[in-house]
Amino acid sequence: MSQFNSVNEYITFMQNHPEQVCPIKHTLDIIGGKWKLFIVLQLFGSEQLRFSQLSKNIPGITNTVLSGCLRDMERDGILLRHQFNEIPPHVEYSLTEKGRTLSSVLLAIADWGMEN
Amino acid sequence: MSQFNSVNEYITFMQNHPEQVCPIKHTLDIIGGKWKLFIVLQLFGSEQLRFSQLSKNIPGITNTVLSGCLRDMERDGILLRHQFNEIPPHVEYSLTEKGRTLSSVLLAIADWGMEN
Repeated sequence: MSQFNSVNEYITFMQNHPEQVCPIKHTLDIIGGKWKLFIVLQLFGSEQLRFSQLSKNIPGITNTVLSGCLRDMERDGILLRHQFNEIPPHVEYSLTEKGRTLSSVLLAIADWGMEN
Repeated sequence: MSQFNSVNEYITFMQNHPEQVCPIKHTLDIIGGKWKLFIVLQLFGSEQLRFSQLSKNIPGITNTVLSGCLRDMERDGILLRHQFNEIPPHVEYSLTEKGRTLSSVLLAIADWGMEN
């Protein structure tokens, strides 16, 4: 259940709180762009994934773009980077609790896509 | 209320329906990118807006990018373009019913931004 009953209620709230950073912009700064939601979706499907598995599961993403997204998302507290100093060394990624709260956004976007 | 109880239920559904176009990708194809959700938000706030009003209300957007977004969104059935053949002629935009169903996506994104 949203804390706003309608988009107009949200708009009124924002008009009355001009000091508030736009929460829609804040969310899009963190998970906007072409790929980040798909990375989140992959990590919901598995506890922990290697870089190479993410790269394989997200067709079209380049390794450079994937690294950049993962770095941003680690900085923004969405995912954790686990370094394994085995031989050969490797890195795995998992969602943080904050990353898991993106389920509501993912489901709203999935619902809209199913219905339209 | 989402038609899926969790992201994992959504993932399982997609695995069982490989013929289904990814609904998340479908939504992002229509409203992804940096600006389209802000255009939708502006049009929720007013019944109908002129190009120049949209341009003024969305800081940072260029007229070329705004035209491109409006053209895509008209093609995708999100908004209507109303041409007024007055002197001087002008154009206004409004949301379609389909555009208005984006409220659930906007509110999920706004909620997440408020909480994080």
